[in-house]
Amino acid sequence: MSGIDSGIGVAGKADSRTAVTVIGLGPMGRALAGAFLDAGVRTTVWNRTPGRDLSLLERGALRADSAAEAAAASPLTVVCVVNYDASDAVLRNDAVAAALKGRTLVNLTADTPARSRDTGAWAEAHGIRYLDGAIMTPTTTIGTPHAVLLHSGPEAVYRENAPVLDALGGTHTFLGEDIGRAAAYDIALLDIFWTAMAGYAHALAVAKAEGITAGELAPFAQGIGAILPPIFAETAESVDAGTFTGEDNPLTSAASSMAHIVHASEEHGIDAAVMRAAEGWARRTIGLGHGEDGFTRIAEVLGRR
Amino acid sequence: MSGIDSGIGVAGKADSRTAVTVIGLGPMGRALAGAFLDAGVRTTVWNRTPGRDLSLLERGALRADSAAEAAAASPLTVVCVVNYDASDAVLRNDAVAAALKGRTLVNLTADTPARSRDTGAWAEAHGIRYLDGAIMTPTTTIGTPHAVLLHSGPEAVYRENAPVLDALGGTHTFLGEDIGRAAAYDIALLDIFWTAMAGYAHALAVAKAEGITAGELAPFAQGIGAILPPIFAETAESVDAGTFTGEDNPLTSAASSMAHIVHASEEHGIDAAVMRAAEGWARRTIGLGHGEDGFTRIAEVLGRR
Repeated sequence: MSGIDSGIGVAGKADSRTAVTVIGLGPMGRALAGAFLDAGVRTTVWNRTPGRDLSLLERGALRADSAAEAAAASPLTVVCVVNYDASDAVLRNDAVAAALKGRTLVNLTADTPARSRDTGAWAEAHGIRYLDGAIMTPTTTIGTPHAVLLHSGPEAVYRENAPVLDALGGTHTFLGEDIGRAAAYDIALLDIFWTAMAGYAHALAVAKAEGITAGELAPFAQGIGAILPPIFAETAESVDAGTFTGEDNPLTSAASSMAHIVHASEEHGIDAAVMRAAEGWARRTIGLGHGEDGFTRIAEVLGRR
Repeated sequence: MSGIDSGIGVAGKADSRTAVTVIGLGPMGRALAGAFLDAGVRTTVWNRTPGRDLSLLERGALRADSAAEAAAASPLTVVCVVNYDASDAVLRNDAVAAALKGRTLVNLTADTPARSRDTGAWAEAHGIRYLDGAIMTPTTTIGTPHAVLLHSGPEAVYRENAPVLDALGGTHTFLGEDIGRAAAYDIALLDIFWTAMAGYAHALAVAKAEGITAGELAPFAQGIGAILPPIFAETAESVDAGTFTGEDNPLTSAASSMAHIVHASEEHGIDAAVMRAAEGWARRTIGLGHGEDGFTRIAEVLGRR
């Protein structure tokens, strides 16, 4: 088993369904490998930068000396690196492609749907069984009931590997055979998350300029957060129906609020670029004749060709 | 009682604590007046544009022929119009100021803290007892346990009028004597809300371009919404402590996600102005040496002088 060794043991023949290789040992990769180890799955690890695997080796992980050796060690390889540039740099070479041939590769790296589909085509050309996935929850949820993972790709491949992937805990949703679908959900959901967080960061800056601490604002901010899920659900119906009903909250009213926020921010010398851009969408949508519609009419206008 | 009449009755002398005037009969003003009526409070109403009061008159409201007559009809006047331009246009004239002198005015109109303080100074100069308030929940919550209202101004005036204002239902929070404080909370909280909604509208556009319906995305979007309140609470502590800890989610990682979102959006020809602006804040903050900090370091950088 040249090249595959750990401080604890040596990787045996990779013929077991309960053996997995984890490539990429950043915080998320380490969490994934740890969850597999906790579930009793034989786990081989590799990271481009050495030295990230020490705590995992102590917990029984096997170390590979190269990505190709890591891939050869298990029927299932899970890769989780910073983006697809990094994933391509590790995977797309002759040695790794040869090692993965006939095996399953699950790419939990986050990037765009286009990158995911491109790697899917590469995998198919090299006889690699390929699944794309997205992890929607923080590292601390991995291996707990709170993890949320999305998967897409060939359903048979997913079903076959689901028992091992279940070691990562939480809820796994198979979204369909379009390999880019998990990445598309990931992008859309992170869009909501990071935009909301940008709003929160900006709100904290404005609040501080008004003498309000983060701790004072937080309970009310939590209240705002709590009303979002039902609004998301209700407005989704009107978006799919194409009605975009404004009811008692027309877009003109939202634009008025947005203008107040921009002014209050800039009166304190605080950059309001995000809200200015959002107000711009609202103003443009009103200008197209949709001022009495609900806010989500913006989604339809943004999507126009 | 010249000038104050309704289809039902005629307003009597305004000497009761349980009498209120509502100025502004848009959707929110009508909801406020309806809640006062439901609570058995004698309610006089006025709106700049006539004809908005018909259903309220049927429910027992009293009609005034002018804003001044409306203000004279009750010890407490609540005004709720589209913004302070509208509120100033109604209130800031000799007749209304004279009618309000020695009485209480509660302004539930939303605008900036600066506008609120300016009107507070006007009220003080005219001997008007003045409170500023913000309504944080939709019209449908008014008169129910789900309403959330914030108040600021002289505490004695607030305490005296709280029993009548309680007819609006829900939770009322007195924020302090700075008359602009309710508006400051309002601005900060609406900042979070409308920024998040802009993110949701954009996410729906990107999802649709990827063949994902709003109804398909919504359950996962609700999941994202649900993780925001605890994150708001946790990060608030580190913001007030000035630590901005990134833990396993450094700003560099967020910026990478944000770039994916921009690319995926623009690859579909969908404007990504909001996320571009948010990513700009992240990149600027990283450029200032805070790449390993948490996302809310952006709040501190935005607030720098």
